[in-house]
Amino acid sequence: MVDVQSMKDERRIPIQKVGVKGVRYPIILKDKRAHIQHTMPRFLNMLQKLCQELKAETAYSDLHFPYFIEKKAPVSGQVSTMSYDCSYEAKVSGKAHSFVVGVKVPVQTVCPCSKAISAYGAHNQRGLVTLKVALGPFFWIEDLVAMVEESASSDLYTLLKREDEKYVTERAYERPRFVEDLVREVYLRVEELGKFPSFSVEAENFESIHNHSAYAYVEKK
Amino acid sequence: MVDVQSMKDERRIPIQKVGVKGVRYPIILKDKRAHIQHTMPRFLNMLQKLCQELKAETAYSDLHFPYFIEKKAPVSGQVSTMSYDCSYEAKVSGKAHSFVVGVKVPVQTVCPCSKAISAYGAHNQRGLVTLKVALGPFFWIEDLVAMVEESASSDLYTLLKREDEKYVTERAYERPRFVEDLVREVYLRVEELGKFPSFSVEAENFESIHNHSAYAYVEKK
Amino acid sequence: MVDVQSMKDERRIPIQKVGVKGVRYPIILKDKRAHIQHTMPRFLNMLQKLCQELKAETAYSDLHFPYFIEKKAPVSGQVSTMSYDCSYEAKVSGKAHSFVVGVKVPVQTVCPCSKAISAYGAHNQRGLVTLKVALGPFFWIEDLVAMVEESASSDLYTLLKREDEKYVTERAYERPRFVEDLVREVYLRVEELGKFPSFSVEAENFESIHNHSAYAYVEKK
Amino acid sequence: MVDVQSMKDERRIPIQKVGVKGVRYPIILKDKRAHIQHTMPRFLNMLQKLCQELKAETAYSDLHFPYFIEKKAPVSGQVSTMSYDCSYEAKVSGKAHSFVVGVKVPVQTVCPCSKAISAYGAHNQRGLVTLKVALGPFFWIEDLVAMVEESASSDLYTLLKREDEKYVTERAYERPRFVEDLVREVYLRVEELGKFPSFSVEAENFESIHNHSAYAYVEKK
Repeated sequence: MVDVQSMKDERRIPIQKVGVKGVRYPIILKDKRAHIQHTMPRFLNMLQKLCQELKAETAYSDLHFPYFIEKKAPVSGQVSTMSYDCSYEAKVSGKAHSFVVGVKVPVQTVCPCSKAISAYGAHNQRGLVTLKVALGPFFWIEDLVAMVEESASSDLYTLLKREDEKYVTERAYERPRFVEDLVREVYLRVEELGKFPSFSVEAENFESIHNHSAYAYVEKK
Repeated sequence: MVDVQSMKDERRIPIQKVGVKGVRYPIILKDKRAHIQHTMPRFLNMLQKLCQELKAETAYSDLHFPYFIEKKAPVSGQVSTMSYDCSYEAKVSGKAHSFVVGVKVPVQTVCPCSKAISAYGAHNQRGLVTLKVALGPFFWIEDLVAMVEESASSDLYTLLKREDEKYVTERAYERPRFVEDLVREVYLRVEELGKFPSFSVEAENFESIHNHSAYAYVEKK
Repeated sequence: MVDVQSMKDERRIPIQKVGVKGVRYPIILKDKRAHIQHTMPRFLNMLQKLCQELKAETAYSDLHFPYFIEKKAPVSGQVSTMSYDCSYEAKVSGKAHSFVVGVKVPVQTVCPCSKAISAYGAHNQRGLVTLKVALGPFFWIEDLVAMVEESASSDLYTLLKREDEKYVTERAYERPRFVEDLVREVYLRVEELGKFPSFSVEAENFESIHNHSAYAYVEKK
Repeated sequence: MVDVQSMKDERRIPIQKVGVKGVRYPIILKDKRAHIQHTMPRFLNMLQKLCQELKAETAYSDLHFPYFIEKKAPVSGQVSTMSYDCSYEAKVSGKAHSFVVGVKVPVQTVCPCSKAISAYGAHNQRGLVTLKVALGPFFWIEDLVAMVEESASSDLYTLLKREDEKYVTERAYERPRFVEDLVREVYLRVEELGKFPSFSVEAENFESIHNHSAYAYVEKK
């Protein structure tokens, strides 16, 4: 059979990216201790082979997956499971490579302005923080999630008893955060760690008094 | 040319629904005074003709569109525009027909439990209420939206000055609503109007202390 | 602490549905032989307990999950993995219950009209068939998927070699299907099995010559 | 009232982007002759003012909208309306600015490999091409759409009679395109125009024999 796809293209326009998109595959990630430091080298190897076989300059891979973490409610200790959308974005060009890990962490933010000007109450809402870090040395997804959750007015839970709800409500009211505060707090924690050559923090607040979002973005290159 | 689609099907299985989906078309709806009572009969006529031409028992149409309403901020009077996702679901079978109008209204809800048990603050969030009413006599989309917005802890705005934000925050704190309260409040207002033979109210709260939603549904048949 | 949520509501409007939505949880389904007949009774038990504890008339559960099946390419035998979106919709009212299993199966359809009137070629496209069956006795998700895939012009694959692509192209061209044909073919196969008291088949074709979909729906009650 | 948001932040971390997201507003674009060359300067002015008022280094705006174009079927001349998702991405830093116009054009692609190796037929599918051009001098959205539609195996229509369907099917079969061909063809046409300092072309094919997409990307900087 003829192989049309291997024929030479006479238009001589180099294409930056070509491949497939939207493939879904079952992958089992092992526990906190094991996986990123095993997964990363395997990914990069796979991309290196791809480059060689296809005679490409650069190979890209962008993998998205839900990651589940067990969490205790702050007062009752009740255990439940939270789900976080994560990603691995890998790139190999000859001997150079990059590997970016992303976590999307839902949080609660209480509005500092609303608290300061109101006799009682303060509007608050769910927000979504996207932290992306370039590897770098060994670390755990759990630690990235924790840095974001500590930066918010409060973190979220799948299961809360009433004593937990009281604690979470009061603690959040004591820790108001604009969306700008939120990305700065995460920035500070990640920079303090000193582990990642570059990273970015993006926050989107699904405002409870508006039908649009508040948004902030900060990066270290 | 042969007309394969008009050939007789030997399998003799009557199909309940067949047609197209996902067509997008520019439509200009006129102002509050004019449109539903003009649009509805035209829609039903169109479906009646479809039934006759295709010799179908029943014709269906499901139209979704954004609807824009100008709104004043509660204290400053600042005017801005809110967008609401609306729908017309029409059905014609011989001489019988139904026409259901849907509005999706984003609102704010303050949690009554969180308020009652906490020394200060109360978690609150954006929620989305879907009200569907079967026509019925003449009415305006603006009135459906207003009934939902009055039922919530607070309605939402595209633009708020600080004096508005103070007002909205305090008012919402004074009017806590579970998702069950919300659908009941809407139910009461719609029933009191006495205009609609049947209707349904659905509310989803994008909880600010959880990463999932609270949900309630009530209908009158 | 006061328990606001357990207080009596004076509005006396019974709510048809109340609960949570959007919870994500890691679940491991075992292989073809084991899972539905184990999962179903456990689900129904869980809902029965929920009814009793909450003194509800009816309890609902709607679970969505990706299901992975290994598949061989038709000529080369090359093995790869396909992913299908599945659902369990369960409902318990006192001693009555229902349990509906849904599978969404992507397929290829070749247009019979385009083939008949054209000197060469025929437009074809990806379609998505949603089959829902009410249980009923024992069966396997694999069998539902197979009935849909046999009904289409061709089934889809994650990996095809060139000899497979030739086979798939020619076979699809020999088996043109309108969206109406597709739902009827699935209907016939499911009815012939005689296992399910009720079922529905929905098909949407992402037309390659239009920017909208062709749609058909058939059900047995 | 205190103005918390205007207080100085002691963390001294400059934020790259802050603002709102997801605002929906009704905008009326006038006809082909009038709008881009009017809209662009107004947008850039608005962003310049924003920079000055907020003492920001850079202001960004990202606007998405559906754009409707009337189209004639190729043989019958039947007129119908197609909808294209478009975007304006504007950026102002002091006196420098950029303005990128994006159009998403759905097309049909016939697979050259499938055609070459099969005795009859060839798999084809809907694809989506995203063309982004940096302005640049005066031009029309209609012209961008036309360059993409000419590059595909066939363009799409909202309404086709049977004589049109025959024409479209045969023409597409005569013009097979891989996703790489498609982006190269668009690249050539846009470069030939010589109007845009930089541009990018992205194509995604919703493969009819796979449940994933084929993808290609090319850019000129």
